[in-house]
Amino acid sequence: MPRARVLIHNRKGVFDPAGKVVEGGLERLGHQVKSVKVGKVIDLHFESGTSEEILAQVEKMCRELLVNPVIEDYVVEIEE
Amino acid sequence: MPRARVLIHNRKGVFDPAGKVVEGGLERLGHQVKSVKVGKVIDLHFESGTSEEILAQVEKMCRELLVNPVIEDYVVEIEE
Repeated sequence: MPRARVLIHNRKGVFDPAGKVVEGGLERLGHQVKSVKVGKVIDLHFESGTSEEILAQVEKMCRELLVNPVIEDYVVEIEE
Repeated sequence: MPRARVLIHNRKGVFDPAGKVVEGGLERLGHQVKSVKVGKVIDLHFESGTSEEILAQVEKMCRELLVNPVIEDYVVEIEE
């Protein structure tokens, strides 16, 4: 069953409040970390389709619904 | 600069409301998708450290702060 994974992060320069909260929490617990970014992962399962078909479909989904291009960047990974 | 990525999803059997909303939205737009799961991705950047050191540290971070083991599962990926 083919699967696609969309990884969505705030664009460079867009503040990431969740990342800052995690960073602060980890530091208070004594962990040393340089920076933290929090994003979303959307896993999509399909009945069928080739990698090319699914990639085209997922790119369309990103434009239409999944991603806000004003503030977010995304990467699509396909797994057959 | 070494980097770790933590992918967090609801455990099997735990309801994923965000996934259901995305699934419904995609279907209304005419996309055919079998199922959708929405999770979190946490990217951690470190000043230094070997893969083994970072993996051990990130596993500790997951137990202490990042993951709720009652309802969530996670995977750690290390990138040097």
